[in-house]
Amino acid sequence: MKKINIGLLGFGNVGSGTYETLYMNKEHIEKKSDIDISVSKILVRNLEKYKTSKVPFELFTDNPDDILEDENIDIVVEVLGGVEPATSYMIKALENGKHVVTANKAAVASNFNLLQDAAVANDVVLKMEGCVAGGIPILNALTTVLKANQFIEILGILNGTTNYILTQMTDFGLSYDDVLKTAQEKGFAEADPTADVEGIDAANKLSILMALAFDEYIHPKDIPTTGITKVSAEDIERAKADNKKIKLIASAVKNGDCVEFSLKPVALDSSHPLAGVSNEFNAVFVRGNAVDELMFYGKGAGSLPTGSAVAGDVLNIAEIMTIR
Amino acid sequence: MKKINIGLLGFGNVGSGTYETLYMNKEHIEKKSDIDISVSKILVRNLEKYKTSKVPFELFTDNPDDILEDENIDIVVEVLGGVEPATSYMIKALENGKHVVTANKAAVASNFNLLQDAAVANDVVLKMEGCVAGGIPILNALTTVLKANQFIEILGILNGTTNYILTQMTDFGLSYDDVLKTAQEKGFAEADPTADVEGIDAANKLSILMALAFDEYIHPKDIPTTGITKVSAEDIERAKADNKKIKLIASAVKNGDCVEFSLKPVALDSSHPLAGVSNEFNAVFVRGNAVDELMFYGKGAGSLPTGSAVAGDVLNIAEIMTIR
Repeated sequence: MKKINIGLLGFGNVGSGTYETLYMNKEHIEKKSDIDISVSKILVRNLEKYKTSKVPFELFTDNPDDILEDENIDIVVEVLGGVEPATSYMIKALENGKHVVTANKAAVASNFNLLQDAAVANDVVLKMEGCVAGGIPILNALTTVLKANQFIEILGILNGTTNYILTQMTDFGLSYDDVLKTAQEKGFAEADPTADVEGIDAANKLSILMALAFDEYIHPKDIPTTGITKVSAEDIERAKADNKKIKLIASAVKNGDCVEFSLKPVALDSSHPLAGVSNEFNAVFVRGNAVDELMFYGKGAGSLPTGSAVAGDVLNIAEIMTIR
Repeated sequence: MKKINIGLLGFGNVGSGTYETLYMNKEHIEKKSDIDISVSKILVRNLEKYKTSKVPFELFTDNPDDILEDENIDIVVEVLGGVEPATSYMIKALENGKHVVTANKAAVASNFNLLQDAAVANDVVLKMEGCVAGGIPILNALTTVLKANQFIEILGILNGTTNYILTQMTDFGLSYDDVLKTAQEKGFAEADPTADVEGIDAANKLSILMALAFDEYIHPKDIPTTGITKVSAEDIERAKADNKKIKLIASAVKNGDCVEFSLKPVALDSSHPLAGVSNEFNAVFVRGNAVDELMFYGKGAGSLPTGSAVAGDVLNIAEIMTIR
């Protein structure tokens, strides 16, 4: 059995979900793939916090070089969040000949070409399924089994918090402010919800989707972005009267040789496959010139769903390593 | 640029869709993958029929050995339909060291282990995305990016004809016989609809799904199968009154160490993601122990959607060949 060592940069929501996915399914993965995957080091900021963790304390370190410079580590999993120091760590890992898996959409969307070029230059693999729509395997589909298609249209509901707010406003006739308050109390929205409600998070994801599906990288700052803070109960009622539902839609549509893109609230006809995607769920609608229309639906966030995406990327790289 | 030669066994609906997908997107594929894919031979029964085809006549042959024994052919695409001679041709191709892509669910479901064993024994790749749910990339998802999951539940609407009939019965209160007649007139149902309406086609697909997702191959004859011929307008009305919709559901559910499976009409709650899948569309609902619930939706048949799946498999193998 091939043994693969992972170094985890970060042990928050996604990092712990990745660890849990790999360990709860360890026997299953070994049987399916004949690969023994071990997490051999975990970078955290505050070691003290992990003294009583279920994870063996000797795995934790607060020195990134214990992972980035460790010759025994094959794959670095970056789940720190934020653009820096995450990007610098990934570049260093790639330059040291390590494959990299990340779920950090802010870092990838800000530095897509830098990271891709470093992977190519060092002949290693960079994978990012967990960056877009959590557990939904959309990036893998677009870049492998759908690769024979030219994409005509990609539409996504890529942020669970805003979809939850819009769904509750639609279903119960509530105001934006009332739903946001309840969502914050229930933990469905952050205390500072700016990145979600202003569309910043979804724009990062759209940037990555476009780069992979259309080979057209646009920095998220250059994506016309409108959040949901101005959507009123009246807007929603008016849409309803027209048999429509308002959704925050990330859109990339081919027009001749160009790709037109935006992130904004859109009133979708109720019969559109994305109109039925409710609450915290995410979905991506794809139209290709051979496959026609497809939709992928699932949990766009959460520790284990995103951990599933990261673990899938790890396994995929491990299999490429066994072929090479 | 790496050059890959394909031999096509069959040039019906799926065969011509595969050819069209590969040629209409040839430049795109070359740019994306740096691989030059050519169809170098096409097996047909009656050569005469292709004398005026848009495809160069010299590509056609009526002798299978022109493909199976041709050392220049790297990948054999089998889209003949039917169990034999398709299975024997695939075995011969695998034994001759050729990779095989098939969209022939009847052949694969009947001879899954025989075909898999031949691929392993000859160190070549056998892929079958087009066998299940046409253009929807479900097999690739289950066997690659979701591989770190243990699956708990897989439910599918895997046959477009029966889903069309049930949708029309539900939406317009029509009888089974009336809808079948209209569907036949419109070309949505075959003159002999037995394989669809009795669930035989969907049972073949369930057999393949289970073999890949649960490593549990069950011959389709051993899957308890009930078609839709006994579903009455009254059954549908009764379901509606309970806020349910009747769908022909392929089901594989883990129960302890066992997998329970069936193919039968089920009254799904209207809130279930599969309940909204209408007319000729297919969808697969998956629950994994890390990713939680996912749904994949799209065109389950048709020349180009299934051609997209076959072409995706071809590209995937071509890329494995460049790594090796």
